[in-house]
Amino acid sequence: MTSAAAATETAAGGDAPRVIYTAAYGVIGPEQRWVERPVVEVDARGVITRVGCAGDPEHSDAPARPDAPPRSEAIVHDLGDSVLLPGLVNAHSHAFQRTIRGATHARGAGDPSDFWSWRAAMYEAAGALDPEGVYAITRRCFAEMLDAGITCVGEFHYLHHGPDGTPYDDPAELSRQVIRAARDVGLRLALLEVYYARAGAGSPPLPEQRRFVDASVEAYLRRVETLRAEADGDALSIGLAPHSVRAVPEPALRELAEHARARALVMHCHVSEQPRENEECAAEHGCTPTQLLARAGCVDPERPGAFTAVHAIHVDDRDRALLASSNVCACPTTEADLGDGIVLASRYMSQGTTIALGSDSNSVIDLLQEARLLEMHERLQARARLRLAGPDGQVGRHLLAAATRGGARALGRPELGQLAPGSPFDAITLHTRHRALLGVEGRHLLDAIMLTATSAPIDRVFVGGARRR
Amino acid sequence: MTSAAAATETAAGGDAPRVIYTAAYGVIGPEQRWVERPVVEVDARGVITRVGCAGDPEHSDAPARPDAPPRSEAIVHDLGDSVLLPGLVNAHSHAFQRTIRGATHARGAGDPSDFWSWRAAMYEAAGALDPEGVYAITRRCFAEMLDAGITCVGEFHYLHHGPDGTPYDDPAELSRQVIRAARDVGLRLALLEVYYARAGAGSPPLPEQRRFVDASVEAYLRRVETLRAEADGDALSIGLAPHSVRAVPEPALRELAEHARARALVMHCHVSEQPRENEECAAEHGCTPTQLLARAGCVDPERPGAFTAVHAIHVDDRDRALLASSNVCACPTTEADLGDGIVLASRYMSQGTTIALGSDSNSVIDLLQEARLLEMHERLQARARLRLAGPDGQVGRHLLAAATRGGARALGRPELGQLAPGSPFDAITLHTRHRALLGVEGRHLLDAIMLTATSAPIDRVFVGGARRR
Repeated sequence: MTSAAAATETAAGGDAPRVIYTAAYGVIGPEQRWVERPVVEVDARGVITRVGCAGDPEHSDAPARPDAPPRSEAIVHDLGDSVLLPGLVNAHSHAFQRTIRGATHARGAGDPSDFWSWRAAMYEAAGALDPEGVYAITRRCFAEMLDAGITCVGEFHYLHHGPDGTPYDDPAELSRQVIRAARDVGLRLALLEVYYARAGAGSPPLPEQRRFVDASVEAYLRRVETLRAEADGDALSIGLAPHSVRAVPEPALRELAEHARARALVMHCHVSEQPRENEECAAEHGCTPTQLLARAGCVDPERPGAFTAVHAIHVDDRDRALLASSNVCACPTTEADLGDGIVLASRYMSQGTTIALGSDSNSVIDLLQEARLLEMHERLQARARLRLAGPDGQVGRHLLAAATRGGARALGRPELGQLAPGSPFDAITLHTRHRALLGVEGRHLLDAIMLTATSAPIDRVFVGGARRR
Repeated sequence: MTSAAAATETAAGGDAPRVIYTAAYGVIGPEQRWVERPVVEVDARGVITRVGCAGDPEHSDAPARPDAPPRSEAIVHDLGDSVLLPGLVNAHSHAFQRTIRGATHARGAGDPSDFWSWRAAMYEAAGALDPEGVYAITRRCFAEMLDAGITCVGEFHYLHHGPDGTPYDDPAELSRQVIRAARDVGLRLALLEVYYARAGAGSPPLPEQRRFVDASVEAYLRRVETLRAEADGDALSIGLAPHSVRAVPEPALRELAEHARARALVMHCHVSEQPRENEECAAEHGCTPTQLLARAGCVDPERPGAFTAVHAIHVDDRDRALLASSNVCACPTTEADLGDGIVLASRYMSQGTTIALGSDSNSVIDLLQEARLLEMHERLQARARLRLAGPDGQVGRHLLAAATRGGARALGRPELGQLAPGSPFDAITLHTRHRALLGVEGRHLLDAIMLTATSAPIDRVFVGGARRR
């Protein structure tokens, strides 16, 4: 907030060249208001200084008209027959899994007919990557994200060491490859550095899990702090990520929770993706994964928004209540692919839980599909429509919020996911003459985008004011 | 078959210029074999005369090499880094519903929170269209289909008369608008002319259903026969379509079945899309919709493949058994949108029922998404993977069959949906450098296309040898 306020002052006070973007339609402000002829003013550093819309006099931030004389030198850039939206925020990714796209849908050498046998195929791919391989596949994956309108990604990164578990000379070697890939592509990165300790209760890691495992919580936190010291909080931020209650024993969860609380870091964790995880947790701890995470201080009601439960599918009412002020990250294309089940987002939303979206396995990279399927999976289950309509009755609006502000909150970047003064100009445009949107009335465009389209109509992507696509 | 055989002879014997297409990968032959360097020879009339692949000497139809001297003048057209597939066949569409894309996902004037209230919004749109309006929206819809790689569509057409139910001077006025739209776009059309009689058991049509209703079965069949006399069976074929057991009384079903049998016409019918339809059928007839259709002769085991049950979601084991030699057309994006439920395609497939796919409401027009979601919806329900793997274990292969040959069979056009000698060259290419497919190994490309992609990588579309996109 401090840097954002500073940016506004600088732009208002100085003579730096500014750009005023206009489009046919758009979503503006922290409240994500759908407007015709949005106007977004961006300063030379890529920070939004004003938003409004043509013919919206009561909106104090709006210039009177897009063609009104600007207060200082400015370029007016009309984005044409486009819908201008905030850049999409992808809250959960395993970039290297892009390498097995298409590869686990047939019986052959293996039989990837459930989550666990799919995991074996995925581990094999993970084991084969050297540092340059991690960079190459991550870069390809991040480039695809950017093309699909994603301007910030939370990379849940657990490939740390050599194939036999020996750390590289630089213990942060592979984390740095991920950071390099994001930087080279021009994508904002929230590196969710993963702690992984074991195969399960009382079981040492499997040989193929050794790459994920740190010698100790201390060794892990040293790496985290090294990376944090190098992170600027803008292009790169760092969060903590105990992999799951399966892979992390309770004392370590407590240490991580304490570290995150003391330094105001976000924490992400896989939660109840598969029923077996719940059964193992019940046997070891006598409670559900969510209850264990709450007991260990990871789910912390005193820090609303700081914890993100990824998946949180196989939960009971008590679990849901514990997650009321947290975020739940749903990953519908992956959750279908792996036979995980359906995230009941409507139940979470109705109690105030923030919903975020993730591309997870990156088999599909398209947050508009994730958003649509979040709603559609619930429709299939409920045999009814408008599941995420909320009190205002607007499904598309809530899906857009999940694909933007929800992810931003989950990644500890609440200034992202919105076109609002003080936020960086991370934005996308969708062409209204794309075949998916052609002929749709303005008042239905946002719903058409969120409930019927894919990323295909996205034709421009800006990150921090720079055009990246 | 006769015309196809003649075409092969003509091409083999004459000196017409031919085109030999090659690509990086493709699916060839009636058995839909995945090959590298497919070779497809097309005669001047757009009919395939030979298929094969480079380095496939045992395949008798293959020229020795793509660059081998052709038997007569021929153009070799290398389609580059592409996957060459048969054109997609869309077995179920209501083109005019494209007009409400994005329009029914919010509470406002109405509350389209279930199938029936959605239907009210859809009827309102239907009521507003005049003949030029029907042409315009159908043309837009069909053009979008073509761009998405669909080369033949089964249009389940029930908008027949003026808004108050008065027939136009030409009772086939609106059918002709649909035919004109398909012809102008260059899409093959199976016009599934709908018979509609009533709102439900003992209920006359609602005012908004009057446009759908014919004065009698005879009046309907007169229109069908007029259109059939004008159809060439190639660009245009005609099938019968009792709308549903809700809208058509049993005696009419019998008359339609008899007419279809005597003239070897295909028949399509909405079946068990919503539980309420089953309840009403039980109350009126004491049986399920499928059982009624079998009793009336519509489902006819002596004519395998002639009947297509659209949706067939809420069925029991006996219904499924009755449909063993029929086709079931699943429309997963619509079935999710409307909260219908999941077509258990794996159960149908295991008993030999042919699966076809439809874009139905045209909220989404993308048969690759329909194919993917067919598998993914089952994964969500079963909490397991590889649901449509079949005995050969190849999910992608079965999904491609549904999107091509399955639809072709359902529309009574078994020569379509395949790149095989005697079939017209209806084909698409997908660019392997599209971001969705980039870097995927050849052996996984078909699964990547069918299980992770959308229509976005489709970059060329041929119908009958003519490039349409």
